[in-house]
Amino acid sequence: MTGESCAKSNIAGVSFSIHPMSDNFIEIIKGAINESDISKVHVKTDDVTTTIRGKLVHVFDAAKAIFIHAAKTGVHVAFQATYSLGCPGDSTGDVYMAEDDSPLNAEQVKDIKQYAAAKFSLYPLGGGNYMDIIYEQIEAMKKHVAVSPAHYSTRLEGDVIGIFNGLEQVFKATVEGGSSHTVMTVSISANSPSHKGDDPIE
Amino acid sequence: MTGESCAKSNIAGVSFSIHPMSDNFIEIIKGAINESDISKVHVKTDDVTTTIRGKLVHVFDAAKAIFIHAAKTGVHVAFQATYSLGCPGDSTGDVYMAEDDSPLNAEQVKDIKQYAAAKFSLYPLGGGNYMDIIYEQIEAMKKHVAVSPAHYSTRLEGDVIGIFNGLEQVFKATVEGGSSHTVMTVSISANSPSHKGDDPIE
Repeated sequence: MTGESCAKSNIAGVSFSIHPMSDNFIEIIKGAINESDISKVHVKTDDVTTTIRGKLVHVFDAAKAIFIHAAKTGVHVAFQATYSLGCPGDSTGDVYMAEDDSPLNAEQVKDIKQYAAAKFSLYPLGGGNYMDIIYEQIEAMKKHVAVSPAHYSTRLEGDVIGIFNGLEQVFKATVEGGSSHTVMTVSISANSPSHKGDDPIE
Repeated sequence: MTGESCAKSNIAGVSFSIHPMSDNFIEIIKGAINESDISKVHVKTDDVTTTIRGKLVHVFDAAKAIFIHAAKTGVHVAFQATYSLGCPGDSTGDVYMAEDDSPLNAEQVKDIKQYAAAKFSLYPLGGGNYMDIIYEQIEAMKKHVAVSPAHYSTRLEGDVIGIFNGLEQVFKATVEGGSSHTVMTVSISANSPSHKGDDPIE
């Protein structure tokens, strides 16, 4: 078991990338960040990913808003993220943990209709019963969006707000269920030309 | 501990996406796949990711070749991948396990010079000493490319062939070291406009 030798930390974080498949990818990314209120999280971008750190509620709220603002341009946009909460190897720096719990972007993005397909994987680390936790949370995800199996992940389809809400609930439930080090990876694809058929939310 | 209730499997796999930040993303992706020899692996693409399954050596060889052929176009291209080996929840289908161990693309791509920056995370699941394995493999990675810490991952910089070789060795060492369920996530960025300064490999 892990966790005995380090202080319990509630610092949540996500390392993510937004990939607009467009010659205008820089403008789309910068525009999406500018339209999002990121004042309750610590944000740092390098040439591989952007890292957001802070309270769990704000980490999810900020990354969701940035992706939705990029996707609403209509361009094919992919979102690739690793969410993490837990102590080993993490520092206590680069966080805004004194903020209140009121998300800054939820109201602004809640009426944006955007179909998306996604794959997510949950990794509760350091514990032997991790597969039981994973199966339980895949089941819980069915309250939010359409769920189907995929190799190395679980496929989600539906409204992007439903996908993000489901991801946040599943991650939170895993942390609150006692996982000392929780990691969740997510790939979301919006406006894909490979997506055929009617969007179920339109 | 896990693994007692399911058959030991050596099926390796990767679920990955190539994201060219260009209006011509479809042509770049299709061209890269056409230039790669994928006849020793099972390949399936949907609207979120491409899944490759087979022997570990061929899974790494095929995904590396596809990315390098996309990156050599000069377009800013991102590679996002989850490599996996281990049994819980996996099926035994969709694999080519009877192939020999000779990689099909290594010779063709070995002289392509391409700088890249990457972040990788190793997740040996189900075991209590997983952080020791992670630290050991971060150390081992230093034989291949420049290594530095990042939030939720380890940053790599250098020649893309060195990055992929390091990733393959680290993953293989973790599996052979006894991890029953090994997952490794990777983000690689080539030709990024955010990358300033001289490329160390040119």
